[in-house]
Amino acid sequence: MHMSKRRVAVAGASGYAGGEVLRLLLGHPDVEIGAVTAGSNAGELLGTLQPHLVPLADRVLEETTVEVLAGHDVVFLGLPHGQSAVIAEALPEDTVVIDCGADFRLTDPAAWEAFYGGDHAGSWPYGLPELPGQRELLRGAARVAVPGCYPTVSTLALAPAVAAGLVDPAGIVVVAASGTSGAGKAPKPSLLGSEVMGSAGAYGVGGTHRHTPEIVQNLGGLTDAEVRVSFTPVLVPMPRGILATCSAPTTIGAQEAYAAYEKAYADEPFVHLLPAGQWPQTKSVLGSNAVHVQVTVDEAAGRLVAVAAVDNLAKGTAGAAVQCMNLALGLTETTGLSTIGLAP
Amino acid sequence: MHMSKRRVAVAGASGYAGGEVLRLLLGHPDVEIGAVTAGSNAGELLGTLQPHLVPLADRVLEETTVEVLAGHDVVFLGLPHGQSAVIAEALPEDTVVIDCGADFRLTDPAAWEAFYGGDHAGSWPYGLPELPGQRELLRGAARVAVPGCYPTVSTLALAPAVAAGLVDPAGIVVVAASGTSGAGKAPKPSLLGSEVMGSAGAYGVGGTHRHTPEIVQNLGGLTDAEVRVSFTPVLVPMPRGILATCSAPTTIGAQEAYAAYEKAYADEPFVHLLPAGQWPQTKSVLGSNAVHVQVTVDEAAGRLVAVAAVDNLAKGTAGAAVQCMNLALGLTETTGLSTIGLAP
Amino acid sequence: MHMSKRRVAVAGASGYAGGEVLRLLLGHPDVEIGAVTAGSNAGELLGTLQPHLVPLADRVLEETTVEVLAGHDVVFLGLPHGQSAVIAEALPEDTVVIDCGADFRLTDPAAWEAFYGGDHAGSWPYGLPELPGQRELLRGAARVAVPGCYPTVSTLALAPAVAAGLVDPAGIVVVAASGTSGAGKAPKPSLLGSEVMGSAGAYGVGGTHRHTPEIVQNLGGLTDAEVRVSFTPVLVPMPRGILATCSAPTTIGAQEAYAAYEKAYADEPFVHLLPAGQWPQTKSVLGSNAVHVQVTVDEAAGRLVAVAAVDNLAKGTAGAAVQCMNLALGLTETTGLSTIGLAP
Amino acid sequence: MHMSKRRVAVAGASGYAGGEVLRLLLGHPDVEIGAVTAGSNAGELLGTLQPHLVPLADRVLEETTVEVLAGHDVVFLGLPHGQSAVIAEALPEDTVVIDCGADFRLTDPAAWEAFYGGDHAGSWPYGLPELPGQRELLRGAARVAVPGCYPTVSTLALAPAVAAGLVDPAGIVVVAASGTSGAGKAPKPSLLGSEVMGSAGAYGVGGTHRHTPEIVQNLGGLTDAEVRVSFTPVLVPMPRGILATCSAPTTIGAQEAYAAYEKAYADEPFVHLLPAGQWPQTKSVLGSNAVHVQVTVDEAAGRLVAVAAVDNLAKGTAGAAVQCMNLALGLTETTGLSTIGLAP
Repeated sequence: MHMSKRRVAVAGASGYAGGEVLRLLLGHPDVEIGAVTAGSNAGELLGTLQPHLVPLADRVLEETTVEVLAGHDVVFLGLPHGQSAVIAEALPEDTVVIDCGADFRLTDPAAWEAFYGGDHAGSWPYGLPELPGQRELLRGAARVAVPGCYPTVSTLALAPAVAAGLVDPAGIVVVAASGTSGAGKAPKPSLLGSEVMGSAGAYGVGGTHRHTPEIVQNLGGLTDAEVRVSFTPVLVPMPRGILATCSAPTTIGAQEAYAAYEKAYADEPFVHLLPAGQWPQTKSVLGSNAVHVQVTVDEAAGRLVAVAAVDNLAKGTAGAAVQCMNLALGLTETTGLSTIGLAP
Repeated sequence: MHMSKRRVAVAGASGYAGGEVLRLLLGHPDVEIGAVTAGSNAGELLGTLQPHLVPLADRVLEETTVEVLAGHDVVFLGLPHGQSAVIAEALPEDTVVIDCGADFRLTDPAAWEAFYGGDHAGSWPYGLPELPGQRELLRGAARVAVPGCYPTVSTLALAPAVAAGLVDPAGIVVVAASGTSGAGKAPKPSLLGSEVMGSAGAYGVGGTHRHTPEIVQNLGGLTDAEVRVSFTPVLVPMPRGILATCSAPTTIGAQEAYAAYEKAYADEPFVHLLPAGQWPQTKSVLGSNAVHVQVTVDEAAGRLVAVAAVDNLAKGTAGAAVQCMNLALGLTETTGLSTIGLAP
Repeated sequence: MHMSKRRVAVAGASGYAGGEVLRLLLGHPDVEIGAVTAGSNAGELLGTLQPHLVPLADRVLEETTVEVLAGHDVVFLGLPHGQSAVIAEALPEDTVVIDCGADFRLTDPAAWEAFYGGDHAGSWPYGLPELPGQRELLRGAARVAVPGCYPTVSTLALAPAVAAGLVDPAGIVVVAASGTSGAGKAPKPSLLGSEVMGSAGAYGVGGTHRHTPEIVQNLGGLTDAEVRVSFTPVLVPMPRGILATCSAPTTIGAQEAYAAYEKAYADEPFVHLLPAGQWPQTKSVLGSNAVHVQVTVDEAAGRLVAVAAVDNLAKGTAGAAVQCMNLALGLTETTGLSTIGLAP
Repeated sequence: MHMSKRRVAVAGASGYAGGEVLRLLLGHPDVEIGAVTAGSNAGELLGTLQPHLVPLADRVLEETTVEVLAGHDVVFLGLPHGQSAVIAEALPEDTVVIDCGADFRLTDPAAWEAFYGGDHAGSWPYGLPELPGQRELLRGAARVAVPGCYPTVSTLALAPAVAAGLVDPAGIVVVAASGTSGAGKAPKPSLLGSEVMGSAGAYGVGGTHRHTPEIVQNLGGLTDAEVRVSFTPVLVPMPRGILATCSAPTTIGAQEAYAAYEKAYADEPFVHLLPAGQWPQTKSVLGSNAVHVQVTVDEAAGRLVAVAAVDNLAKGTAGAAVQCMNLALGLTETTGLSTIGLAP
């Protein structure tokens, strides 16, 4: 029997996350795109703001209001942090709401207050199906919190090692080189092309980046041992992509490490453990929902080193959002998503 | 009294290191440029291969031979690894020879054999004047081994912390994002613009990069404690620049760490400790001999985090070479070098 | 009735054109991928050379021989210029052969000899269905010559004006900024990332680029007037994309020009005439088969100015190839192709 | 006799033009840097906004007022268009005022009103010493209007041909690929790194860019014939540099064209006519005051094609400003300026 298409709204359609959700939905066989909304850009043509989405060029952006978003089967929220809770509460309980923002990711109110400030809105099922046991929580869920881009790639790089007890999780170091789209479309001098091209710079150093507690939360769920993570994001001159270099103290060897990753990811459709010796590059996952992973052990340093690459807007945000929508709606998890990157 | 200018030869003038040495020498008041030599490019005009060096456009590249290089006060070697020793031995003992290659950097023959293979040529005074006691060894030296680009920036990022015993040097992690010029001018498919633009990728993972033992050697000279370094280089889409994110376990606080760096670098002309809270960016050091450094402590992770930026071809190679030449010749150390970057 | 899938081979699968053909074929519902072949890379895993094509990672590249390619319904050739003729002649007449190279594009033997040298192999139906009358020639064709990337974008930018007699085609000027992938994957020093990032440079200046006679041929087919084209390609630092700025003397006004383009492209699925005042950008067509076009008239200069953007590897090569395959096989022309770009 | 250093103020020191003026002045032996001023950034440390200017890191930006700027020998103005006139009028007549903005470039009030709007402030000696007769007007001048970046490179590319009557100046076409810094440091979404990296786009198409009348004015001064220029700027993904591809109808041959350029630029210190067959690249002029030029004739198209490369912030703005300051103060024209680029 052919099911009727689900009607989907996208709030924040003029931003990068919203635009990428739309790009993916346009190729999804089981949905039709309903309302597309924006804040200050409401009233403009989508074709002016997202000229790459040709089939939607004539769509007019509506205001992001509950009235506009109600009546859809699925609502994607690509809103600034702190704006999702009000909208979500006002939508019917059986509407599938997928939040690309941070509001419902953290379970610990203290962590929320320390890193985001203000009241903690609560937590929703966390949209990383590749975490042990997590996929089941997402099937049929009516609310999903899409993970942050850095937590996605860092967690998937380290999860097999932490879960199997192969490393000391109190000594984790993550340094992640990211493209600029993760910083969004709101213009700031430091994000101008003139500033970012030809330059690399760290920011949020010393554990102050808001994605830090999310990484700790994810890895902490995999072990009873103490988890401490030194996380440093580095902005590098490319529009998309994150390459996370992750390490932790270990006493095992490289083959044992690789075998553990092979086992952990054998059945994951979007985690691609590369052949031993081949290292991830972000270009290979451009536009795709795949995460490329490799692992080895540096015996001289006594550390397991895992590297993972992700497209921050695809599997790092909008791809994960669609993957979770598929699970929430009971569709095949991989529908409308691809493991094929755009290279060169 | 006005001293006559020193006559300087540059071997490997068609490559990136040689080209940058020439760029700096053209602005140096106390030298005149003698022979410029190349391997397979001998016979060609420098203007064809290095069109940015307009004043030398009509110079013909000579063969890299002892005969051509002899008779200069200073000889810079920008040759592939393994080719410097034969040339250097045949040059007069009082000729100042500055080797931009790796041949004479490592003091431990076992480390040489493990990472480079073949016989160890020996070691020369190591051209990092900012290391404690090192400046004195370089004054008047007739042979200098210019440090590798990653070791320069990694060592300067961590030296104050290691020397003062503020961190556990057995748990050092360095992840360094580098522009592509460090890989040289010999064409390989993986270094094509089509491949590197828009992509980040780690290489030499697991402690296999040749600069690893050099970092260990430098930091090991500053402490009696065991030094273990997990070093991962990451190629990012920019022609020049390295940003090294370095961390190690600590129990001190951020202010104590900053104070130690302030003290260590107070009199260093080329190490620029940024005001607290401002983090290094490679664009700020483009073309300059400066190293920008910042440090903090991530108390939740229990790690001191130091970040340093350098131009891999300038202070990371050719600038250091000229700085060492100045010391070797008894000139003012900063002559012909600048702390001013080219930005944006 | 469900038709069985067509079996398709790709020769030159380790190169950029071949890789892009494979990327598109992986999303095409009516084909299955048969042999993938290479020259010097034969025997290697596709996953090593094209790591973004995850579903084909385990495929071994075979030798590019007639034996390997025979027995497929369709053969795509992504070979160096001059190598297609021998292969094509040996394949059965009813095998659809789509040549991404230049061998069969030019109809004038003198033009071939002047720009490519050697004997003219002949000409095949030219794979630009958007040219008046051309689509019909491609339906059911067994041989197709895929246009060059610059001719595609330049021709589509100017065709409506030339065909309608709105401009003097003896005074055409085309300056096209191109990403680097058009130069292919064979490594040359001038194409290194270190060389191309941060720099723009013209090449093939003065009408010497091999795509010049192809542009003249295309536009010449639309008018009886003399066609003269000054074509200058400019290499700019991006992996993909061509932006062609095209102009010619005119006496009409901007509205008349726009109206002519509107009429000419009203029914073309892949030519997207932007709303008046919005100008093409290559990012909007990244990975897509769309060509974005805009036109105006500079009355002070007396010239019509048309700008078009294309992805040189997609609609500029592999997308056109698949579009032509669809026509040749009698499939819907747009199958497996998209007008949606990957941005940002 | 040793002259005392001239005291120089820079207004707009937080912007790109102002920052580049400061970078050059720091290397100028005959000046000392006095006040550095800004608009909304007044009160901030220069080291925060221009971290590459290490020697000035501790300078506090003052307000841009006549009081602050008065009392200097030279005042550079790097202000938004329209703000220079008020400041300049209030400064003493014998203060050398060098305006990097557009206010005093155009001699024709009608052109000013058409392209900038508002009242025409008048015109000052035009700071392009390479124009015939212009150098003399700049010696000892107390007011100088620095040319726009596109007019500088386009004029120098075409001047020899127009002045010698080798081309029909009614059929000039200029397409210029530019880096993003020409658009300044004020943040706009379209100038974000995420938007500009990996993309090329034309703007100001159809003769609407404000630099169009300036190009016409410059070339019009070289001939009695009618000058018509079709000018299209193209934004490409690099921070600095302009490559102008310029052409015009001709009946001469390539050798005659080259000879004319050789003669015209034989004594120009900053115009570097490349050897025949070698084409300009912007990387060769990065940070330098040189303009690289090449010319040929496309006989099939009947057009002379000249290509020139310039650093838009150096010779295109701040370098020209310093060159004009040298002339105005009676210093050697080349003092503090270099023809050496920073590459790769």
